[in-house]
Amino acid sequence: MKLYDLPPSPNARRVRIFIAEKGLDIPTVPVNMMTGENQTEEYLDKNPLGMMPVLELDDGTCISESATICRYLEETNPNPALMGHDALDRALVDMWHRRMEFELLDPIIRIFVHSGEMWKDRVTQIPELSQINRVNVLSRMEWLDRELNDREFIAGGDYTVADITAQCAFVMAKAAVGIRIPSELINLNAWWARVSSRPTARA
Amino acid sequence: MKLYDLPPSPNARRVRIFIAEKGLDIPTVPVNMMTGENQTEEYLDKNPLGMMPVLELDDGTCISESATICRYLEETNPNPALMGHDALDRALVDMWHRRMEFELLDPIIRIFVHSGEMWKDRVTQIPELSQINRVNVLSRMEWLDRELNDREFIAGGDYTVADITAQCAFVMAKAAVGIRIPSELINLNAWWARVSSRPTARA
Repeated sequence: MKLYDLPPSPNARRVRIFIAEKGLDIPTVPVNMMTGENQTEEYLDKNPLGMMPVLELDDGTCISESATICRYLEETNPNPALMGHDALDRALVDMWHRRMEFELLDPIIRIFVHSGEMWKDRVTQIPELSQINRVNVLSRMEWLDRELNDREFIAGGDYTVADITAQCAFVMAKAAVGIRIPSELINLNAWWARVSSRPTARA
Repeated sequence: MKLYDLPPSPNARRVRIFIAEKGLDIPTVPVNMMTGENQTEEYLDKNPLGMMPVLELDDGTCISESATICRYLEETNPNPALMGHDALDRALVDMWHRRMEFELLDPIIRIFVHSGEMWKDRVTQIPELSQINRVNVLSRMEWLDRELNDREFIAGGDYTVADITAQCAFVMAKAAVGIRIPSELINLNAWWARVSSRPTARA
C-alpha cells in the first residue's frame, strides 16, 4: 500500500494526519504537480482527475478522494475510531466532516486558487470570488466558535476526522491566504490550541 | 422519523430517490425557502446552516447533509445495498459518489445560482463563474461517457448512490440551466435511459 502525496496540499495533509492518528505506516510517493507529474498517462490511470492524494493498494486498486481514503482506512483499521462509534454517531461525525469540507476547506481553497500567484496561468482567476469567500470564511469561523461553546471537538467529545479537516483548512488559511482565527473567537482558539498541539499535527 | 424537504432541490431529490430505492416510507415536510421558512429559529435549531434536506429522528436528533442522510439510512437499512458490499466496494462507491457531487452536481448548482433569476437578490452573481462551469460540465460529461464504456452504472455493475446523485444532477442541468447530454455521448445516454426509467426516478 502507498499514498501518492502532494506534500503542501490540505487534502493530502488530512489523509497523512488520519494515517498518523491510526498509528499506520504507509509509504508516501510525492507527486510534483508543478512539473505535470499528475498529468502523465501513468498517473491518470490511478486517478483520471489528476488529483492527489491517491491510496494504491497492493493489488494496484487505486482509491482517490481524501474523505474516501480515510473511510477505507477507518473500516479496515477501526481503532482508534476517528469517524464515530455507532450508526448515529457515525452520521453526526460525517455531517460535521462535510460541513468542515464545504463551509471551511473548500472556500479557503477557492480563495487560494482565485488569488494565488501559482494559479495565475492554470485557471481563470475571479478576484471577486476570492473576496466573497473571505467574507464567508470569517462568518463560518464565528458560527464554529458558537458551536464549540459546549464541546471540545467539532463533532462532540472525541477528536475525529471533522477536526482533522478543519485543522488542515486553518493551516492553509494562515499559510496560503493570510487568514487567522480572530482573537475574540475564544472557543475556536481553544479548540485550535487543542488540535494543533497533538503529536500528529505536523504529519 | 421525518424528512424536511425542498421538493425541487437536487439534494432533496437524491435523498427521496434513495429512500424510495430502499422501500422506506418516511413522511416529508416541505420547507418553503422563498418565504424564509428555512431561516426561522425553529428550523435553524434543526440545521444551523438553514439547508434542506434534514432527517429528524423520533427523539428529535437532526441529521443534515444529503450524503450523510443516505449513509445513515444505508447503515440502518442495509438492503438493498446502495453504497457497496464490502470495505473496498464501499470505498469505490464513495469515491464515485464524491466525484459525481464535486465534478457534476456542484458545478451545475453553481451555474444555476450564478445565472438564475431566483438567486439575483440572494447572492452576488458572477456570470463568468457560470460560464466556466458550463464548459467544465460538458467536459465532465465527455469523461463520464468514456468511463461508462465498460460498465452499466457509475461505480460498476450495481446501481448505487453515485448514480442517484448523477441523475439528480442531470435533471437539474436540463430543467434549470438548459444543459442536455449531447447525443454523441452514447454511453452516457444509455446510462441515462437506464436510470431515468427506474420506478423511483420521479420520487
